[in-house]
Amino acid sequence: MNVFSYRPAPEDLSYTFGGRPAVARIAPGSIVETYTEDCFGGRVTSVDDLPSRVCEFPYLNPVTGPFHVEGAEPGDTLALHFVSIEPARDWAVSATFPHFGALTGTHTTAMLTPPLEELVWRYDIDTASGVVRYHARRSDFTVELPLDPMHGTVGVAPAASEARMTITPDAHGGNMDTPELRAGVTVYLGVNVEGGLFAIGDGHARQGHGEVCGTAVEAAMNTVVAVELIKGVGTPWPRLEDDDHLMSTGSARPLEDAYRISQHDLVTWSSELTGLDPLDAYQLVSQIGEAPVGNVCDTNYTMVAKLPKSALGRPEVYESAHARLRALGLRYLAER
Amino acid sequence: MNVFSYRPAPEDLSYTFGGRPAVARIAPGSIVETYTEDCFGGRVTSVDDLPSRVCEFPYLNPVTGPFHVEGAEPGDTLALHFVSIEPARDWAVSATFPHFGALTGTHTTAMLTPPLEELVWRYDIDTASGVVRYHARRSDFTVELPLDPMHGTVGVAPAASEARMTITPDAHGGNMDTPELRAGVTVYLGVNVEGGLFAIGDGHARQGHGEVCGTAVEAAMNTVVAVELIKGVGTPWPRLEDDDHLMSTGSARPLEDAYRISQHDLVTWSSELTGLDPLDAYQLVSQIGEAPVGNVCDTNYTMVAKLPKSALGRPEVYESAHARLRALGLRYLAER
Amino acid sequence: MNVFSYRPAPEDLSYTFGGRPAVARIAPGSIVETYTEDCFGGRVTSVDDLPSRVCEFPYLNPVTGPFHVEGAEPGDTLALHFVSIEPARDWAVSATFPHFGALTGTHTTAMLTPPLEELVWRYDIDTASGVVRYHARRSDFTVELPLDPMHGTVGVAPAASEARMTITPDAHGGNMDTPELRAGVTVYLGVNVEGGLFAIGDGHARQGHGEVCGTAVEAAMNTVVAVELIKGVGTPWPRLEDDDHLMSTGSARPLEDAYRISQHDLVTWSSELTGLDPLDAYQLVSQIGEAPVGNVCDTNYTMVAKLPKSALGRPEVYESAHARLRALGLRYLAER
Amino acid sequence: MNVFSYRPAPEDLSYTFGGRPAVARIAPGSIVETYTEDCFGGRVTSVDDLPSRVCEFPYLNPVTGPFHVEGAEPGDTLALHFVSIEPARDWAVSATFPHFGALTGTHTTAMLTPPLEELVWRYDIDTASGVVRYHARRSDFTVELPLDPMHGTVGVAPAASEARMTITPDAHGGNMDTPELRAGVTVYLGVNVEGGLFAIGDGHARQGHGEVCGTAVEAAMNTVVAVELIKGVGTPWPRLEDDDHLMSTGSARPLEDAYRISQHDLVTWSSELTGLDPLDAYQLVSQIGEAPVGNVCDTNYTMVAKLPKSALGRPEVYESAHARLRALGLRYLAER
Repeated sequence: MNVFSYRPAPEDLSYTFGGRPAVARIAPGSIVETYTEDCFGGRVTSVDDLPSRVCEFPYLNPVTGPFHVEGAEPGDTLALHFVSIEPARDWAVSATFPHFGALTGTHTTAMLTPPLEELVWRYDIDTASGVVRYHARRSDFTVELPLDPMHGTVGVAPAASEARMTITPDAHGGNMDTPELRAGVTVYLGVNVEGGLFAIGDGHARQGHGEVCGTAVEAAMNTVVAVELIKGVGTPWPRLEDDDHLMSTGSARPLEDAYRISQHDLVTWSSELTGLDPLDAYQLVSQIGEAPVGNVCDTNYTMVAKLPKSALGRPEVYESAHARLRALGLRYLAER
Repeated sequence: MNVFSYRPAPEDLSYTFGGRPAVARIAPGSIVETYTEDCFGGRVTSVDDLPSRVCEFPYLNPVTGPFHVEGAEPGDTLALHFVSIEPARDWAVSATFPHFGALTGTHTTAMLTPPLEELVWRYDIDTASGVVRYHARRSDFTVELPLDPMHGTVGVAPAASEARMTITPDAHGGNMDTPELRAGVTVYLGVNVEGGLFAIGDGHARQGHGEVCGTAVEAAMNTVVAVELIKGVGTPWPRLEDDDHLMSTGSARPLEDAYRISQHDLVTWSSELTGLDPLDAYQLVSQIGEAPVGNVCDTNYTMVAKLPKSALGRPEVYESAHARLRALGLRYLAER
Repeated sequence: MNVFSYRPAPEDLSYTFGGRPAVARIAPGSIVETYTEDCFGGRVTSVDDLPSRVCEFPYLNPVTGPFHVEGAEPGDTLALHFVSIEPARDWAVSATFPHFGALTGTHTTAMLTPPLEELVWRYDIDTASGVVRYHARRSDFTVELPLDPMHGTVGVAPAASEARMTITPDAHGGNMDTPELRAGVTVYLGVNVEGGLFAIGDGHARQGHGEVCGTAVEAAMNTVVAVELIKGVGTPWPRLEDDDHLMSTGSARPLEDAYRISQHDLVTWSSELTGLDPLDAYQLVSQIGEAPVGNVCDTNYTMVAKLPKSALGRPEVYESAHARLRALGLRYLAER
Repeated sequence: MNVFSYRPAPEDLSYTFGGRPAVARIAPGSIVETYTEDCFGGRVTSVDDLPSRVCEFPYLNPVTGPFHVEGAEPGDTLALHFVSIEPARDWAVSATFPHFGALTGTHTTAMLTPPLEELVWRYDIDTASGVVRYHARRSDFTVELPLDPMHGTVGVAPAASEARMTITPDAHGGNMDTPELRAGVTVYLGVNVEGGLFAIGDGHARQGHGEVCGTAVEAAMNTVVAVELIKGVGTPWPRLEDDDHLMSTGSARPLEDAYRISQHDLVTWSSELTGLDPLDAYQLVSQIGEAPVGNVCDTNYTMVAKLPKSALGRPEVYESAHARLRALGLRYLAER
């Protein structure tokens, strides 16, 4: 088993997809063990650390990478299987950040009203019990919520020589902020540049649908990813696969366009996988598809279109990369 | 137990919320047994019945009612508990309707491209096994999907002397098309006119998130509703409650506004129920709230904001109307 | 010349399109002299009259009418030529209304931030000099702006038995709030019910594009309209014609859909008028069409698509109704 | 007078803002004479050259530059005064490009319907008479339209180490496609990186509002720009100034956000220039502001908010850069 460990120093973190050289080269079939900082770069450690004071634009939402996958060329697909996502600290933070979030004016939904108050919440993470503990700031109320670790950000270098802030989700991936991206899931990303140049970051101990206040339960993570390269097969928008579901994503504004992109991709993908006529696939997805909301706060909004594989008769997908990577991941965990 | 049975003749069906006299008066605390036609008025019975030919605008999406609830006045809330929703036939239909659906030009997302082809699918309903069977139109592919009956349309007469087509969801309810509206759920609707004048329709044997092609598995239903009146308590947008969740809805365009309305209502409602500061409630909903998509095809789009009651410490809601109506419904079912 | 004068008492004003009987019957070819109240029903008379205190929802934006046009049937078109629009008082008012306007949270673009402050401005109208005078509230700044009277609201009873608040623009007309609707312009409205039932209101002494703060320079008006009925010719969305331009309107959300509707109608209308292939018309409109913004603050947003008639070779439009009504109006003004 | 002439070879053209070294260094106060290719890179020369065949993604919408302005640092503003914009050829082209334009499905407003037909139009440019001649493709119809040259694309390197396709307008400028950007206008751009790195391209012989079909009358241009650097004064979104108007721009989706950004900037800018209270400025802009639509077809939509200087008492703007550059430009033209 080819295991590559990489722990970035703070100055190794990246704030864009594209526009940066790789931090390492990975052979397809490898396991990557790595560490990701939280979206505040670890600078918010208590309720007194207001992000607008301790963080500095644009140094937000750092990602670990990019990693060059050997042999990857435009037109190929990277398969990244998340073997494990484990909180690296026993605490996490969240905040209302000025001009950010779905229920406040922002720099684009521009308002003359003052921004919502900036406030920080600190959560306790109890990995053993599988919970995070919420503490209200202005009362004694506290409650345990299920721990459900995920990565908000995963992506590759964009097409057309672009470099995009890590906060922006688009066809190259980026800050999609979907809770569906948890351990056990394989993410498929279309390769736009030689090596693909994937990076990951923005771990969440858990997140609601849409990340309505703008931030999740933000946590540093120790994460293990198994990597494959699928030659000659393109992927127009990031796709996800778990043992029982196929998922397409779309990131755009307004939110209905994120919905349209994701559902359109799921319909045409289903049609390709099964030979169903596109209208027949449209009908089937209409009745059994789900649409988990990713984010409704970032520079593009993200929606996921999700279908049980059983509805399609469990077709073969991406040359069975998910099953293979899943097995590799289990082997790695057993040997660790 | 006060049980009222009502089966509308075709000419009794209504095509608006508001603008019509009540078909019956109901005392609070009553059970209503009734029948609803499908969104095509029962006129599409085979794949050869194209809706654009057999249906006539604006006679689509008929509702049963309106029912006048005695004593209901503006500022009150109607609680409608769906005791049971049972398909009235062993088949259902779905269709791509010209200029309707999320992946085609419509009358408002106006395009110069011709509309998507009109096509009808007929489903078999097997109530005993709890499945509906999909048949592809252009191949032999067929698959069983779980039966999960729901009502797409429920509402009251709107405020401000308006009358709205039943197809339109807004603050008065209407065609929200959320799969969350299944048996076991209580819907809360703010009263705008004397008697409230609620009506229901648009049964679906099942539906995917967003009803992407524009129609669900459309079915006539035998439905039983238990009705309460909550005096002096307003409800800004339709809310839902099941045994374990509170839900707010929002219906608007663009889709992010439907999200904003529903999340805003859930945050402020959570704050009122628990005494949490609004920003504390915002934070909590952000991490544990879900956002099931209703429709992304109607004249307004609908989103639901959903929270486990446990996250709020299971507060008392609407004077415990749900528990009371649930018990009444179970008693009714036991005695039936 | 058939001249009909009508001055409504306060209790005669209407707050919906549809759902109300006609206040009078008009023969096609008539001149209607009438009076319209401002959007506050004349209750805001000084900067101390806060609308949220002196007005009562839903009694806002009153219209004068509806007028039944004899012989009008669904499928016909009403042509309303605005002969003159004259301020009825020497003052007008404007305001920031809570949760209303483009740069504040609203009931649908729901925010947790408090609403923008409510403030009233009072304008002097000098009809002789053709100016309105703006006075800043918080400094001595004052400036004269050109008087440019218009009606924000004009429409007919909607289709499908709907009744809509006058504040809402849609296919039936309503509160489009476009400055293009000034004297000298003919408005074409498709008839949905017998008699058409047109009404007008919401005079503005002038208005910027989009009515960004939510209200214009709101003024009562003495208005004269010349009316024709065009039998057997439908009109999908309100259209306008002046001596040199054809205009289509669209009202929807998001704003790009209002743009799409209006441009789509202008392209297809141009194609019908000239025999140009739709793609040729699309190309021509793309290069010479304008897109004056109506409102970006109401329950639907409105855009206008505007084309110089010269670009189409000045084709005959609606059986030359505009030229005929214009001549009738000039004759009326000469004889007055 | 410091005059710098630069004519790019095809391989010198740029397809991004950011991510590229400067092609030349310019001293503030200089005149730049240059040439820009059309959006198709000059490859579409007849109606038989379908863009999807003769062009290659992402090599579309080339810009000339970037130019490094000496001394420019983040926090400064570049003032670019367009002295003259002259068509370089006696013809221009336009096209419907698959999945591009406001009245067709696109890659984000994803549809299952096939794209609109691809078609090319070739215009004659007659600089002497000041007209462009449109020829219908499917009939003999032809018409002269006023020549009104402009640049669709102008911008600087974006903040946050981003590189963006030239087709995308955002806070750094880019493909705003507003007809307001004609000769005689000064554009203000906030500097994000050392040297600012401005570039220009995408000349249009003329353009309608919104560029509804996706392309304008696309033309190569000989363009002269006068350049100033305003130290220590920031500019959040591109602004324009002509002799009589101030203009703010906003680029975003949905279109109402482009409107909000531009109006918000115009309101706050007006407030800063005059000392008016922000609500007083909001009111004034609401009544006298215009909102010319830029594009409703690119990856972000663009709107302009436009105010006559007279409404503000003709305040001093950007240290009178416009007047100074205008004088410099006139001197250049006189001496040429």
